[in-house]
Amino acid sequence: MVPSAPVSRSPLGPQVYREMAVFSGNAHRALAEAVCKHLEMPLGDCEVTQFSNEEVFVRFLDNIRERDVFLIQPIVSPVNTRLMELFVMIDAAKRASAGRITAVVPYYAYGRSDKKDQPRVPVTARLVANFIETAGADRVLTIDLHAGQIQGFFNIPVDELTALPLIADYFRNVGYESPVVVAPDVGDAKRARNIAQRLGAELAVIDKRRIGNEERTQAMGLIGDVDGHDCLIVDDEILTGSTMMSAVRLLNARGARSVSVACVHPVMSATAFEVLDSPELSELVFTDTLPLVHGTFKSVPTTVLSVAPLIGDAMYRIHTGGSVGALFR
Amino acid sequence: MVPSAPVSRSPLGPQVYREMAVFSGNAHRALAEAVCKHLEMPLGDCEVTQFSNEEVFVRFLDNIRERDVFLIQPIVSPVNTRLMELFVMIDAAKRASAGRITAVVPYYAYGRSDKKDQPRVPVTARLVANFIETAGADRVLTIDLHAGQIQGFFNIPVDELTALPLIADYFRNVGYESPVVVAPDVGDAKRARNIAQRLGAELAVIDKRRIGNEERTQAMGLIGDVDGHDCLIVDDEILTGSTMMSAVRLLNARGARSVSVACVHPVMSATAFEVLDSPELSELVFTDTLPLVHGTFKSVPTTVLSVAPLIGDAMYRIHTGGSVGALFR
Amino acid sequence: MVPSAPVSRSPLGPQVYREMAVFSGNAHRALAEAVCKHLEMPLGDCEVTQFSNEEVFVRFLDNIRERDVFLIQPIVSPVNTRLMELFVMIDAAKRASAGRITAVVPYYAYGRSDKKDQPRVPVTARLVANFIETAGADRVLTIDLHAGQIQGFFNIPVDELTALPLIADYFRNVGYESPVVVAPDVGDAKRARNIAQRLGAELAVIDKRRIGNEERTQAMGLIGDVDGHDCLIVDDEILTGSTMMSAVRLLNARGARSVSVACVHPVMSATAFEVLDSPELSELVFTDTLPLVHGTFKSVPTTVLSVAPLIGDAMYRIHTGGSVGALFR
Amino acid sequence: MVPSAPVSRSPLGPQVYREMAVFSGNAHRALAEAVCKHLEMPLGDCEVTQFSNEEVFVRFLDNIRERDVFLIQPIVSPVNTRLMELFVMIDAAKRASAGRITAVVPYYAYGRSDKKDQPRVPVTARLVANFIETAGADRVLTIDLHAGQIQGFFNIPVDELTALPLIADYFRNVGYESPVVVAPDVGDAKRARNIAQRLGAELAVIDKRRIGNEERTQAMGLIGDVDGHDCLIVDDEILTGSTMMSAVRLLNARGARSVSVACVHPVMSATAFEVLDSPELSELVFTDTLPLVHGTFKSVPTTVLSVAPLIGDAMYRIHTGGSVGALFR
Amino acid sequence: MVPSAPVSRSPLGPQVYREMAVFSGNAHRALAEAVCKHLEMPLGDCEVTQFSNEEVFVRFLDNIRERDVFLIQPIVSPVNTRLMELFVMIDAAKRASAGRITAVVPYYAYGRSDKKDQPRVPVTARLVANFIETAGADRVLTIDLHAGQIQGFFNIPVDELTALPLIADYFRNVGYESPVVVAPDVGDAKRARNIAQRLGAELAVIDKRRIGNEERTQAMGLIGDVDGHDCLIVDDEILTGSTMMSAVRLLNARGARSVSVACVHPVMSATAFEVLDSPELSELVFTDTLPLVHGTFKSVPTTVLSVAPLIGDAMYRIHTGGSVGALFR
Amino acid sequence: MVPSAPVSRSPLGPQVYREMAVFSGNAHRALAEAVCKHLEMPLGDCEVTQFSNEEVFVRFLDNIRERDVFLIQPIVSPVNTRLMELFVMIDAAKRASAGRITAVVPYYAYGRSDKKDQPRVPVTARLVANFIETAGADRVLTIDLHAGQIQGFFNIPVDELTALPLIADYFRNVGYESPVVVAPDVGDAKRARNIAQRLGAELAVIDKRRIGNEERTQAMGLIGDVDGHDCLIVDDEILTGSTMMSAVRLLNARGARSVSVACVHPVMSATAFEVLDSPELSELVFTDTLPLVHGTFKSVPTTVLSVAPLIGDAMYRIHTGGSVGALFR
Repeated sequence: MVPSAPVSRSPLGPQVYREMAVFSGNAHRALAEAVCKHLEMPLGDCEVTQFSNEEVFVRFLDNIRERDVFLIQPIVSPVNTRLMELFVMIDAAKRASAGRITAVVPYYAYGRSDKKDQPRVPVTARLVANFIETAGADRVLTIDLHAGQIQGFFNIPVDELTALPLIADYFRNVGYESPVVVAPDVGDAKRARNIAQRLGAELAVIDKRRIGNEERTQAMGLIGDVDGHDCLIVDDEILTGSTMMSAVRLLNARGARSVSVACVHPVMSATAFEVLDSPELSELVFTDTLPLVHGTFKSVPTTVLSVAPLIGDAMYRIHTGGSVGALFR
Repeated sequence: MVPSAPVSRSPLGPQVYREMAVFSGNAHRALAEAVCKHLEMPLGDCEVTQFSNEEVFVRFLDNIRERDVFLIQPIVSPVNTRLMELFVMIDAAKRASAGRITAVVPYYAYGRSDKKDQPRVPVTARLVANFIETAGADRVLTIDLHAGQIQGFFNIPVDELTALPLIADYFRNVGYESPVVVAPDVGDAKRARNIAQRLGAELAVIDKRRIGNEERTQAMGLIGDVDGHDCLIVDDEILTGSTMMSAVRLLNARGARSVSVACVHPVMSATAFEVLDSPELSELVFTDTLPLVHGTFKSVPTTVLSVAPLIGDAMYRIHTGGSVGALFR
Repeated sequence: MVPSAPVSRSPLGPQVYREMAVFSGNAHRALAEAVCKHLEMPLGDCEVTQFSNEEVFVRFLDNIRERDVFLIQPIVSPVNTRLMELFVMIDAAKRASAGRITAVVPYYAYGRSDKKDQPRVPVTARLVANFIETAGADRVLTIDLHAGQIQGFFNIPVDELTALPLIADYFRNVGYESPVVVAPDVGDAKRARNIAQRLGAELAVIDKRRIGNEERTQAMGLIGDVDGHDCLIVDDEILTGSTMMSAVRLLNARGARSVSVACVHPVMSATAFEVLDSPELSELVFTDTLPLVHGTFKSVPTTVLSVAPLIGDAMYRIHTGGSVGALFR
Repeated sequence: MVPSAPVSRSPLGPQVYREMAVFSGNAHRALAEAVCKHLEMPLGDCEVTQFSNEEVFVRFLDNIRERDVFLIQPIVSPVNTRLMELFVMIDAAKRASAGRITAVVPYYAYGRSDKKDQPRVPVTARLVANFIETAGADRVLTIDLHAGQIQGFFNIPVDELTALPLIADYFRNVGYESPVVVAPDVGDAKRARNIAQRLGAELAVIDKRRIGNEERTQAMGLIGDVDGHDCLIVDDEILTGSTMMSAVRLLNARGARSVSVACVHPVMSATAFEVLDSPELSELVFTDTLPLVHGTFKSVPTTVLSVAPLIGDAMYRIHTGGSVGALFR
Repeated sequence: MVPSAPVSRSPLGPQVYREMAVFSGNAHRALAEAVCKHLEMPLGDCEVTQFSNEEVFVRFLDNIRERDVFLIQPIVSPVNTRLMELFVMIDAAKRASAGRITAVVPYYAYGRSDKKDQPRVPVTARLVANFIETAGADRVLTIDLHAGQIQGFFNIPVDELTALPLIADYFRNVGYESPVVVAPDVGDAKRARNIAQRLGAELAVIDKRRIGNEERTQAMGLIGDVDGHDCLIVDDEILTGSTMMSAVRLLNARGARSVSVACVHPVMSATAFEVLDSPELSELVFTDTLPLVHGTFKSVPTTVLSVAPLIGDAMYRIHTGGSVGALFR
Repeated sequence: MVPSAPVSRSPLGPQVYREMAVFSGNAHRALAEAVCKHLEMPLGDCEVTQFSNEEVFVRFLDNIRERDVFLIQPIVSPVNTRLMELFVMIDAAKRASAGRITAVVPYYAYGRSDKKDQPRVPVTARLVANFIETAGADRVLTIDLHAGQIQGFFNIPVDELTALPLIADYFRNVGYESPVVVAPDVGDAKRARNIAQRLGAELAVIDKRRIGNEERTQAMGLIGDVDGHDCLIVDDEILTGSTMMSAVRLLNARGARSVSVACVHPVMSATAFEVLDSPELSELVFTDTLPLVHGTFKSVPTTVLSVAPLIGDAMYRIHTGGSVGALFR
């Protein structure tokens, strides 16, 4: 016989609605586990695999009907597969009747493809936002988008957390005397100013320009004074590290007492582990929004600040209707 | 340190969902306060301002995550700014993760732009409905739309209340002997008949026609008999009052014993306060769906019937899943 | 006076949300009643009629605000009217502020119009899915779609139940010695294999082919061996019965010991009651996803397996967040 | 006469893209043929049938890629099947890559279901509009909607033609001395006034009211004077004819010299052919937006005014980018 | 032979609007070039690259405003990157104001993820369809979808071509005496029957079943007779080749005179080049909808049938409004 | 000079379909006329008014069926009314069957509301983008958005022109010896660098910071050296001028030889005409994307650079399928 549920309607029926359930794709299971540990709850059971034809397959092994589902997946290498995993997880959760789906994307890839700055190019950061909505996510939780306007690429609510206070707190504890915060490019000046203001530090800006018609030859100028100061270069993400290293050298040449480098998202291609692993650089600071998938740093002193408590607290507030903004007051 | 929420999951978690929260734009704060007083709850704290460049800005000062948010804003002068305030409030509430957003629009402007009655004109009442949905409202609560079909301009649920029983009750208590309800135009005959039926009164209809090719010259005929009767002209809204005043004069000329004028929505442009403030008119009755922003009546006896209890009761029923229709049974 | 609700906010407010409410259109009230009996709850009160101009009209007589509404309506003759009833019920429920709307469609008509297999034809199964979503349904519950891919025609969650275990259980209880399950066409082989596997039976397949250019002349071949075996032909639905009857005769001619016919959906046009009511056929088995509207079987032994407990259990699990998949484990 | 565009197709119009193609469903092939005759072009070849399970099937036999496709289908009995035919034709045309699809719906059924005038009822006129858009129509051409606001139920362009000038022209040619145009209900007064103004006639209005609590018992009053005048009752559609016949009798009782009845859409249920076929009525005038499917009139003098030239001219202007509004100037 | 349209572009076709422009992603440039050669036009210039962070970047080097743009990209390994390339190309083309965008996807990956056949899994084939529409494609051109119903996953027009006639023609020319076409699984019987009917051949079906509870242990049965016949196993795609090879062995064991294998889409993982490269197999036939990216066949005789003329003819007909269906009449 | 397309309309362009038609709202008729003069075509006839209840009304007096319609309307004071005019014009054009609608918005208001930089605020720049799409625009043409990411707020194609080359050309012609381009805030550094690079000039950046907890008290620092140089402060828009004037004074205090101020969009509130009209400032340069509605400059030398040729050329290229990007090569 087909099994038949006992038909006594629980007066608590609607309570089952919105019980929290957290799952991880293959991008950064360690972070998801740290978040769940912070929340004192288990990470949910979900199969996220690729068939031998490379097609992504997802199966939730727990019943998630009406649950408040959080899917944790920063978009790290292999980027397009991790992205597809996220989309497919959302679709599977939607079709499995999840009560609410929050895409937790600590690092939002394609963030630099956020405008048409030359003819006939895409705005992929918007396209990815469309796909997250189309797949069925109800909301997004992310950290330090490349540009705040990417929030506006979504019609669903976006909670953007920031790890800049974590970084500023770290350097405040280091206790430099009169540090200078340096923006590695004029387009990054606002982020650097944010840190500078938190540290009561001066600001300097590096001005890179093309030389002649050659696309890749650049001259680097420095606006502001760093002579005799401890310098902190702050960026949102580091990829190959080569531009960053040129900046380090420029600052050293201009008399910097020391040069530290901090970023939120350690995208870090393989070359970054060669280029940045250098004594010219005093310290390297970043968070764990992303795992290091292409290598490790051997000689440069490295500090990893964990965003797991920050993400966990935000998820808890999203789940219980608490203020996420209050986390930063 | 970043503050960390105590991670004990309340068994009451979902209860926070849908706590009621009521806010007002700048259109009619007095009405919003009267509604909240009726509901015995405070009006929420929300900044709705314009920058020096006239751009509308909104900030909710209370946390509204998962709350059952009601935004009270009739569309009164300055019409397009009040409309934009409504849209921006909805967008801000959506992005602030409101649980549900009800646009409470006691007067729905642009209601007369509800069809293409000449070539190449807009259907702005539909456009506004689209904008309310696009901005993110989940439902609409309104009073006496210019045409009931405007409900159908929305895909989201619309609760349309009516103040006609309030008006009929008022006149029943006055106790005219054999009143005649007069429709100020053939297109308004149904609304007048509604009142007439409630009062057990006769109906008369004014028939305005264009003369020749001149757009604005009109002849007014009267269908039905008013001689010796107390007349009640009933309209949904009054703007300049000039057509209404012509109707008053026509009825007086046809032997009316008295002429009272009632409308739900006192749109009342500045000229209305000159034109209608006249002894030819026995009484002027309207509701407070709109504030009077362009003047006051000085000599004509005026009665304002408050819709605040009606709106408050409807909001309460929407919040608790009670029947709104039952309010009118 | 307009009645005023007592304004004490119940601490249980949100509980009213999602109380279950079940309604039936005119397609199969007996099934809806059986489902409600299984759930030990009353069938809701809803007027579903046609005006004298044949236009469908719907009115819910119970308040359904925020309720968890289930609308039970298989699409049976008169097909297009029953379909329109379903759409209009959904629209009315949406505009009446139902909390959630589940379209329970035990038989999904137009399922065979699921692809463009010739130029310039529609994909009506997708169109109907679009209409169900457009009208405002939040989810669909159905039984044995003609093709599983029809699930993918929806963007909303679909729970597809199957009555094949019911049918297999029935035949297992009959206790044939070494039955052969026969697919009436190569396109139906998977469904037959499903039953065969459950019964541990062999499989045979009927191969129909066009002869020459004539559209309707077909030759029937049999792949596999049925001589001396009890044969069970299994299909998802039976319409006119004539193809099925040709299959029965072919099997008898090939030495079948007996031939039983089973289907999930007894669409059964008027001719089916003539064609299939024959001694060449040992038994006819189907479910009650559809009522028999065009006739009755008189001589062939007929068994009707009820899907009401299956639907009721699934609805209960949908309502309480239980696993529907677990019904079939 | 309504002006008729000269039907010579511009040499610039018909490129491969947007060659005109006209098809008819099963609702009113005679009208479609008359339209094509007016346009001096053949009616396209399209199979619109029902399978033995009553499911509608459509197949275009002509290639319609990139053509400017017009689908002519008023919604007449059997209403829901004709509606489904329209939807399926649109879907098939869209999937067959039609360049543009215009749904030509001379009579738009469900027009009276255009607002929620009681709790928990649908707004089916909007639902049908949604379905037409969802199916894939690019635009709609229709005649005399029950309410002009139904235009606003669409987001796509709607061209609403009117046959009222045809009707007014007809009665002007009859040459009554001082006719009175009578609205059969207060809600129809605007349409009657339109005709009255074109004829320079007086207006009268019938006021029907419920008596006590009985839904269907009505008292009829007459506002205005008809004694000794030829009366023309004008409505948009006639269904059963019984209300209309009561109006005829009332006018006769009030001394009307003659009573003619005109409507645009002869919906005409079977009873209409009994009720209206009466000597109390001088003449019955309607158009051919609908075929008479339930009977014929035997004794009452009947005039059918064809809308085929009007539709054909509008289609031609839509196709060539001419002004449709100019048809009515 | 598949008929080939004469490729002379109509003087009426190419105005500025809708001039044809064809581009290739990185999946299968050779096929795109073959198509363009067939069309006697150049392949357009478009940069499709990945940055060092693996993000896909696209730039059209030709102006494509108002052009009729075709983007050729089968979804081959690395699958998720090729898919993302397709999406990003569509977005870039849309934002570059292409007049019309046709996604030409000769092999549609994720086609087997077309239904929920177990709880809590995705329907990725629908998700990909949604993404193609969301990105901005106006239409899709594809070849032999895994299931015809995938057409219905799209709301935009889909032209599905079939290479089965190419395969049937090939084997007809080989001239086997009385071949048997074998379906490698009961779910593939329809496709095999299609080929069998074209060849006038008999049909046999392989019936794979699970043994006990082990997911992957299967028993293979054969329904039908192959003794002494040349067998042709026909599938839509081949991935690892191991199931196919088991089928080959089964047929050889049952006395097949020879066994040939044909498929439309040579997905061919690395193991396929080991498994299938065997003397047990007489011949391997497939098309060039996909390039072989993981290896080459060394000993088994292999024939590649090109679909370039078929795609080119279809594109030309799409561009000029010709019938694509007529290609297969 | 910005290149200007030769304005001879291709004989292939203007068929009936897509003949160009240009209309202006009430925001900046002079600009629309200048654009039409550049295009050697008349400005179309369109009534854009407000009723006495302030509701915007639009009526196109020309037939615009299938025309390529351009609606020119920068969003200037009264901002919300001009915005509503734009939306209503789009709706009216859509319902009047325009072939294509391009919203030409030389100044896009609400551009600074492009991200949630504090809790519970809107992203109005996205909301406005949604409204433009919802109303029915097919594309947008604009100049120097506050942030390039606003392009990504649209799903429809956006052509963003830039007037920065016009400004750079102007200052190059002035012939300063070694000018320094100054960014008035760190967030504006990229735009200033763009101009600096075009002029081969140095860059300096002003760093404004909050002092203590007071929201509005700011300290201004200067990064970079201006002593003895001619300074050009470049911003995208100027509103009240007070921050700009503080920057002017800071530069003068730091030894600047002269200080010129340039911006693209002269939003210019009333106070700007007092604050900036000062001898501390050598020159004021802006474009005519906006009219000056709140005053005039009396003593400061002012230069207005017209964007009319730029807009006209872009419109012509949009209309004829030419490359807009090529305007800036």
